[in-house]
Amino acid sequence: MGLTLAEIASRLGGRVAGDPQVLIRQVAALAQAREGEISFLANPRYRTQLARTRASAVIVAAESEALTAKPRIVCENPYAYFARVSQLLNPATRFVPAIDSAAHVSPGARVSPSARIEPGAVVEEGAEIGERSWVGAGCHVGAGAAIGPDCRLYPSVVVYARCRIGARAILHSGAVVGADGFGFAPEGGQWVKIPQIGRVVIGDDVEIGANTTIDRGTMDDTVIEDGVKIDNQVQVGHNCRIGAHTAMAGCTGVAGSTRIGRHCAIGAAAQILGHLEIADHVQISSCTTISHSIRKPGTYTGLYPSSDNASWARYTAWVRHLDSLADRVRTLEKERKK
Amino acid sequence: MGLTLAEIASRLGGRVAGDPQVLIRQVAALAQAREGEISFLANPRYRTQLARTRASAVIVAAESEALTAKPRIVCENPYAYFARVSQLLNPATRFVPAIDSAAHVSPGARVSPSARIEPGAVVEEGAEIGERSWVGAGCHVGAGAAIGPDCRLYPSVVVYARCRIGARAILHSGAVVGADGFGFAPEGGQWVKIPQIGRVVIGDDVEIGANTTIDRGTMDDTVIEDGVKIDNQVQVGHNCRIGAHTAMAGCTGVAGSTRIGRHCAIGAAAQILGHLEIADHVQISSCTTISHSIRKPGTYTGLYPSSDNASWARYTAWVRHLDSLADRVRTLEKERKK
Amino acid sequence: MGLTLAEIASRLGGRVAGDPQVLIRQVAALAQAREGEISFLANPRYRTQLARTRASAVIVAAESEALTAKPRIVCENPYAYFARVSQLLNPATRFVPAIDSAAHVSPGARVSPSARIEPGAVVEEGAEIGERSWVGAGCHVGAGAAIGPDCRLYPSVVVYARCRIGARAILHSGAVVGADGFGFAPEGGQWVKIPQIGRVVIGDDVEIGANTTIDRGTMDDTVIEDGVKIDNQVQVGHNCRIGAHTAMAGCTGVAGSTRIGRHCAIGAAAQILGHLEIADHVQISSCTTISHSIRKPGTYTGLYPSSDNASWARYTAWVRHLDSLADRVRTLEKERKK
Repeated sequence: MGLTLAEIASRLGGRVAGDPQVLIRQVAALAQAREGEISFLANPRYRTQLARTRASAVIVAAESEALTAKPRIVCENPYAYFARVSQLLNPATRFVPAIDSAAHVSPGARVSPSARIEPGAVVEEGAEIGERSWVGAGCHVGAGAAIGPDCRLYPSVVVYARCRIGARAILHSGAVVGADGFGFAPEGGQWVKIPQIGRVVIGDDVEIGANTTIDRGTMDDTVIEDGVKIDNQVQVGHNCRIGAHTAMAGCTGVAGSTRIGRHCAIGAAAQILGHLEIADHVQISSCTTISHSIRKPGTYTGLYPSSDNASWARYTAWVRHLDSLADRVRTLEKERKK
Repeated sequence: MGLTLAEIASRLGGRVAGDPQVLIRQVAALAQAREGEISFLANPRYRTQLARTRASAVIVAAESEALTAKPRIVCENPYAYFARVSQLLNPATRFVPAIDSAAHVSPGARVSPSARIEPGAVVEEGAEIGERSWVGAGCHVGAGAAIGPDCRLYPSVVVYARCRIGARAILHSGAVVGADGFGFAPEGGQWVKIPQIGRVVIGDDVEIGANTTIDRGTMDDTVIEDGVKIDNQVQVGHNCRIGAHTAMAGCTGVAGSTRIGRHCAIGAAAQILGHLEIADHVQISSCTTISHSIRKPGTYTGLYPSSDNASWARYTAWVRHLDSLADRVRTLEKERKK
Repeated sequence: MGLTLAEIASRLGGRVAGDPQVLIRQVAALAQAREGEISFLANPRYRTQLARTRASAVIVAAESEALTAKPRIVCENPYAYFARVSQLLNPATRFVPAIDSAAHVSPGARVSPSARIEPGAVVEEGAEIGERSWVGAGCHVGAGAAIGPDCRLYPSVVVYARCRIGARAILHSGAVVGADGFGFAPEGGQWVKIPQIGRVVIGDDVEIGANTTIDRGTMDDTVIEDGVKIDNQVQVGHNCRIGAHTAMAGCTGVAGSTRIGRHCAIGAAAQILGHLEIADHVQISSCTTISHSIRKPGTYTGLYPSSDNASWARYTAWVRHLDSLADRVRTLEKERKK
């Protein structure tokens, strides 16, 4: 059905300018928006799109208010406001609490009566499923594991034994929480497995992407703090700690025993080696390898440039001779001084 | 069983030279082939292997026909012809159409009577499964999703709600189509989730590898056009478009909102950053990061060279001092001019 | 309950020094250990931690024995000994052999009476499950596949048709063994699928991490030899051979037809291109791309350095001009000789 601007503002705050009775049914980007949709301007460089948009209303900051005559909501953070409007207009799918007759819930598991367990899901002995949590088809919650309230496990999520997940978590399909860390002791040219007896402990409001893996600790726990957002196909090794409200984009890897601070942003396909410490408020660029601890907030990058193949071959051929090139420069410098 | 050369040529075209009644039971590479097997020569530099092969017949181009006296099929594209012979000799596994009694098909789903739904698979409300499609054990087809005809979903594939897949798709185990894109608005040091309300729309004749993830769009759709082939563990972010007949090798990542052209070939473990445009007919080499749009067809590379550890340490130590090295060269140049 | 030092030494060898009746209930790192726990010293640089540890006993080599007065076990390889003590104190979960009534075992499959098949698992026609093997919930063992004795397949593992896995394998959730290799022949701007008719053949004592994928061979087999340990999210392409007792850390990729020797160690996120040969006893550092065959044992590295963003931009800007920088140095050298 939709909501009027007045209704939106009464729920989310902000100030309505223009007709407060405009009905909004959906959100859209400025360039794609149609009648009945609301868009937003977070960056003044999109002002041309704002001028042309067919959206019925827009969300703007006070300093951009004059850029449009459309009905609008004026607020401090238009992008976050837009996210909240979208949440209002696109609420999570409702579900009927139930343990499906084709689910497999151990007699010693504790499942909240307000939770839903889909067909084929398994909840093992001693596991707990919190209030209003939704465990999708084919998920596996291991013995003694705990899923907090208001969580959503999409189909085919696996949570190994004894791991703990806080409130309001979203785990996408194929995520594996608590598989064994990669720990072996070398002996006579072979590998002796070190039992991985720690857990994974995940805070509140965490989202974990599809096919992401977070290994259990060797002896202590692997910890994901509150508000961490992890994209798809991310690998977090054993004994790591990811600080609160840190975001990690897809294909990132964090090797074992590394601690990442709070409020960090890790770009796609970044790799962070093991046993490092990354400070709070660090941004790591996409495709960057971090091989040393980072003590200071800031942005860190290590992307090797690509080019058309012929140019790349020309300059990359010199990389392996950089030390001798530097030697030649030094020789020239010495001769000059004579 | 098997087929004679004459039977093969009558189905696939080409010209038989030598005994057309030779019986072929299987395909093999030149070096491994045994009696009853057919091999191919696509590149004249393997002529020594051709001379030595124990294959009963070979597939060759006209210009290589004289290199062997074996029974042979002469055609324009021996490699593609070989692929088609292998398809003839190794047809897809037959199956009996049925909804297994341990499958979970919602009453509001439409499953073709010629389709097969394996045990533990779930087909949600409003979903469609096309003619002769095979949904493997433990797969999940979300509400309102559509799978076209002649598709094969291997076990444990997840297709989220409302996504659409065309005809003749092959999805390998662990593939996840339509999980939420990674979209959050920052607000006061925390992240506000932006509902991902777009879909994934996949054309005809697409293959998607094991544990590959393709995220749904934020508001518009993520689109995979006809004939795209995607290997294992590839990540495609929200709002991307992959052009028709593009191939992407394993471990590749494409960040959000990037558009890749048609007939591109993306090498293994390449990473393509977000919001870029890649032209048609672009080849990207393995392990290459693309951080700018590419407007012209061609091959693009960005692989950093590896060496024995000591050499690497010697030359890589100079990378961080390249700008001062360049300064020193400029100083020498200036002095020379005096 | 726990074990005394004397009991441990009677099972695992080594010499007890100090009170042999000390009761050990768990293992722990030196810094975290508490009463009732045993720790180890493998590297003398942790001697300060040894001095401060609250562990009830420690495992040390003879040369470090004098560094502590605690009850201790003296042995040759304290780290491997520690791993074995942990195995004693943390034995694998016991299970009751059974085919769960919600498992789907084909009448033509052979499941050992001492095996366990969990709910939702599927064992297809002609497949074999060895003695004391445990097939987790939602696993899929394809037609004609064979799982050896004493294996553990965690939930949601997929083993495609005809693949073979030896004794004592551990496969973590989401691992996919035997999906089609990425093989297509180009023809008229499109791709013709080459049926992947080889298998994956895995030796004894192999561990495979969560969401790792190992593709079946095109015509021959992909082979993982005995004792190989593979971490999470690793991709092994078709026709590869991984030599015995090689370890591969997370996010590593090996492209098709590459052969890796025995006793190699591949660091996290390394990428090894296709059709290469890597000798025995090769170490490849994390985040390194290998684009040529390696004939000699040793350590190989190719990590591009990262820095704060401004420094990176300064030095990386010169990478693309390395060849002209080298030209300028050569010009200076020529002029000097005049």
